Amino acid sequence: METCIRWDAMKAACPTRQVIARIADKWAMLVITALEGDEALRFSELRRRIEGVSQKMLTQTLRALERDGLVSRTVYPTVPVTVEYRLTPLGQSLTEAVDAIRDWAYGHMSEIELARDAFDGRAASSP
Amino acid sequence: METCIRWDAMKAACPTRQVIARIADKWAMLVITALEGDEALRFSELRRRIEGVSQKMLTQTLRALERDGLVSRTVYPTVPVTVEYRLTPLGQSLTEAVDAIRDWAYGHMSEIELARDAFDGRAASSP
Repeated sequence: METCIRWDAMKAACPTRQVIARIADKWAMLVITALEGDEALRFSELRRRIEGVSQKMLTQTLRALERDGLVSRTVYPTVPVTVEYRLTPLGQSLTEAVDAIRDWAYGHMSEIELARDAFDGRAASSP
Repeated sequence: METCIRWDAMKAACPTRQVIARIADKWAMLVITALEGDEALRFSELRRRIEGVSQKMLTQTLRALERDGLVSRTVYPTVPVTVEYRLTPLGQSLTEAVDAIRDWAYGHMSEIELARDAFDGRAASSP
């Protein structure tokens, strides 16, 4: 694989491209949001909190975040086994940037909705 | 559609969920990155700059960003027609958050790579 001397996500071969693909993902951002505040949550709790996520998607997202070192998975030998997920310090270091994206969305919803209405109006009236 | 009194991306019906899905997208983040600095770029320039993006994916991403009011599309009546894309003021307001995500990725690549090696090592040695 071609390497990049300095990180440059514009280069297809740069490993940062893959990391951005992992973080710049709706479900990853919602999992990180759910785990903010140093909370440990069980799979079922995460699934309840993140409305609409499928079991498969949550499993895949958690596994990918665990592989990248953002989420830790702790298994407690109860009967049945208890598995808890929480953000690692590396994952915690990402929360500020994730919050910024989410807060931007919260703060600009009305502008976005106006833009959509205008766009859809133009599309409907164009010949 | 069920509404949310306050924005809450954890709710499947909250319109912010959809906006986060749009922004929390690798190609959208790379387009916004490419257009930072108040630059206007033609489709072909964007495609060259964002290595590996397909024509279809770039078209879809630009159209979605235009619909949400983040990117403007200007058509100049040259022969052949020239089409330029640039960030709107709304799009510019998002660049700080996008930069934060990208800079986090640039700043933590080595930790992520170590975490992956450890994870893959554990996966390989587990019974």
